[in-house]
Amino acid sequence: MKGRGDRLAARLEEREVDLALVTDLVNVRYLSGFGGTNGACVCGPDTRLLLTDFRYTQRAEAESEGWEVVTVSADWLGGIAERLSGRVGFEDDELSVRALKRLEEKLPDGVEMVAAGGMAGELRRVKDAEELRAIAAASELADDVWRWSLERGLLGRTERGVARAAEARIRELDGDPSFPAIVAAGPNGALPHAEPGDREIQRGDMVVFDMGAKLDGYCSDGTRTFAAGEPGERAREVYAVVLRAQQAALAAAAPGIGGEELDTVAREVIDEAGHGGHFGHGLGHGVGLEVHEGPRVSPRSEDELAEGEVVTIEPGVYVPGELGVRIEDLVAIRAGGCDNLSGLPKDLLSVD
Amino acid sequence: MKGRGDRLAARLEEREVDLALVTDLVNVRYLSGFGGTNGACVCGPDTRLLLTDFRYTQRAEAESEGWEVVTVSADWLGGIAERLSGRVGFEDDELSVRALKRLEEKLPDGVEMVAAGGMAGELRRVKDAEELRAIAAASELADDVWRWSLERGLLGRTERGVARAAEARIRELDGDPSFPAIVAAGPNGALPHAEPGDREIQRGDMVVFDMGAKLDGYCSDGTRTFAAGEPGERAREVYAVVLRAQQAALAAAAPGIGGEELDTVAREVIDEAGHGGHFGHGLGHGVGLEVHEGPRVSPRSEDELAEGEVVTIEPGVYVPGELGVRIEDLVAIRAGGCDNLSGLPKDLLSVD
Repeated sequence: MKGRGDRLAARLEEREVDLALVTDLVNVRYLSGFGGTNGACVCGPDTRLLLTDFRYTQRAEAESEGWEVVTVSADWLGGIAERLSGRVGFEDDELSVRALKRLEEKLPDGVEMVAAGGMAGELRRVKDAEELRAIAAASELADDVWRWSLERGLLGRTERGVARAAEARIRELDGDPSFPAIVAAGPNGALPHAEPGDREIQRGDMVVFDMGAKLDGYCSDGTRTFAAGEPGERAREVYAVVLRAQQAALAAAAPGIGGEELDTVAREVIDEAGHGGHFGHGLGHGVGLEVHEGPRVSPRSEDELAEGEVVTIEPGVYVPGELGVRIEDLVAIRAGGCDNLSGLPKDLLSVD
Repeated sequence: MKGRGDRLAARLEEREVDLALVTDLVNVRYLSGFGGTNGACVCGPDTRLLLTDFRYTQRAEAESEGWEVVTVSADWLGGIAERLSGRVGFEDDELSVRALKRLEEKLPDGVEMVAAGGMAGELRRVKDAEELRAIAAASELADDVWRWSLERGLLGRTERGVARAAEARIRELDGDPSFPAIVAAGPNGALPHAEPGDREIQRGDMVVFDMGAKLDGYCSDGTRTFAAGEPGERAREVYAVVLRAQQAALAAAAPGIGGEELDTVAREVIDEAGHGGHFGHGLGHGVGLEVHEGPRVSPRSEDELAEGEVVTIEPGVYVPGELGVRIEDLVAIRAGGCDNLSGLPKDLLSVD
C-alpha cells in the first residue's frame, strides 16, 4: 500500500494543495490498507497520518504499515487539526457541510481547506497486479455461483428465490454479494433495475441474471440472460443483437479508446438492428473496491481507457412489456486489448 | 406516513426555516415511505416533494402517498432548485460540501440554505404503534435465531462459523442482519468490537453473541453471553454483576429519566463490584430504522427518555486478556416503565 500514498502525494501539486485529507472510507482503505469502519487519512510528501478511534487502534497499526496511527476520541477531525498546515485538499464530494465547518473552527492560523474531491478515485482507476488478481478471483466465484444456480434449474422458481439462493451461495463460498442480485424474468427483464419479485419463472421467459461477488474487498459484476425452456423467435433475435454489440465492444476495448467512443461501438450495432430506443443505459463502468467506480463508459463519458483499468461491457436491449436481454462481461484493459475476466459461455442457453 | 410530513412541517418554525430539504435516505424513507436508493424530500406546511430518478418514478408514486414525485436526471438537487423558496433548512450533517455548493449555484434569488441537521432524527426517536410492532417482530426473529444457534452447539465451532451461520439463518427467515453478528469467545470477549475470527470455541469460554435482525426496514439489537461447557468461578461472578446492573437499569427505564442518569444506574452496580474500569462503553442507544439512532443512553447523553422510544440496555464487563460478558435487551419505553422486546432468558446458560 505504501506506494499508493506516494502516488497521491505526487498529485498534490497539480491540485495546488500541500496535503490531502481523505475521509471516504473506501479511499482510506485503498491508500492505507486499513479496513475498519471509522478512519481518515492525511497524506503529503512527508506526511502519512491515519486517524481512527480506540476500537481500531490496534487493527490500524497492524494493517497500515508506513502510516502513523492517530487515535482520536470525541472530536474526530478536530483531533488532527493541529497536524494540518498550508493548503489542505479535502473530498468535497464526501465531507459533510457540518464536518468541514467543525474542522475549520479548530484549524491553526494560515491553514486553508480546499475542495479537491476525486483525487483518490483517479488513482483507483488503474489496478495493480494484486488488485487484478483479487477482481479475477471475485469474478470466478460469481461464475461458480451462476453454474450452481443453473444446476438447480429456473422453471417454477421465483425471481426472488433464485436471487436469494445465489446470494446465500456467494456467502457460503466466503464472499459477499457486491450488490443485491437481480433476477428479472419475462416482461420484468425490460426494467433494467427491477428488484426480484414473486414472479415464478415460466417457460418461454428470458431471464436477466445480474450478479457480483465481493472477495477480499474487491468486487465483480456480470450479467447473463438465459432462456427458461425454449426461447421464441423474438428472444433469439434480440439475444443475437445484444451479443453482437457486446462482441464488437470487447474487440474494441483497448488502451486509448474513449469511454464515449467504446459505448458508441456497441450502441451502433443495436441502433442498426432497429433497437435504438431500447438501450437506455451506458455500456459500462469501472469496477474495483466499489462495484461502480471510474472510468465511465457511456455516451457522457469524458474518460479514456488505460492499461490496468477494469470495466464492465454490458449492452442491453429492453423491449417494454415484453423482454429484456443484457450480456455483461468484466474486462481488464491491457496493452493492445483486454482480458475477459468473465468465464461463462455466452451462447444462448436454454434452462429448465 | 402522511402524519410524519406534518410533524416535520410543524417543527420548521422553531428552526426558523420555511422548508426542510431532507437528503438522508433513511429519513426520506421515514417521512415518505419511499424505499429506493436515490431520493430526497422537500417538506413545508404546503409542500411535499419527493425527488428521485427515472429508475424509481413508479415505485416512488406507489410508495409515497401524499408526496408529489419529481423525477430529476443529471442535475439531482439542482432539479428542484426552482421549487425552493425562503429559508431552506438542510441536513448539514449529511449533505456534502459539493452538493450544497452546486445547489446554491442554481437557487432563485432570495432563497437561503440554512444548516438544520437532526430534525428528522428527532422525529424518529418516538415510534408509533406500527413501528413498535415492526421492531418487536425483528427482535422475535433474532430470538429464534439464537435458539437455533444454540441447538447446533458452540463447542469446537469457530466464532466466525457461528456468526455466519446465524446471519444465513436470519436471511432464510426473510430478514437481514442489522449488523454483522459478533461472536467473541474467551479473551476475545474482552474486546467489545471484536470481529469473529478463526478461534474455536473451547470448554470454559464465555461467548459474547451480539446480533440483530432487520425486517421490513426496522432493526433489532441484542446480546447474550453463554458459557461454553461449565463456567468457572470468575465467569459466574462477572456474569452475576452484569445481570444485576442490567436488571437495575431495566427497572429504572421509564419516561423522564435522563440517558446519563440511566447509564449511571447500571454503572454504579458495576463500579461497586470492583469492575469500574471494565465497562468502557455507554449503556445503550436508540434503535429503529437504523440500529444506532437517538436517543443516547451514556455518560455523555443529554437526552431524556420519552414514551415510545426504543433503546438498548447493554451493560458489559470486559476483563482484558480473560473474558467479557455483555447482556443486552431491547426495550420500548411506555408510561411508568418499559416493555422488554427481548424474549430470551438471562440465567447463565451452559452450552456444549
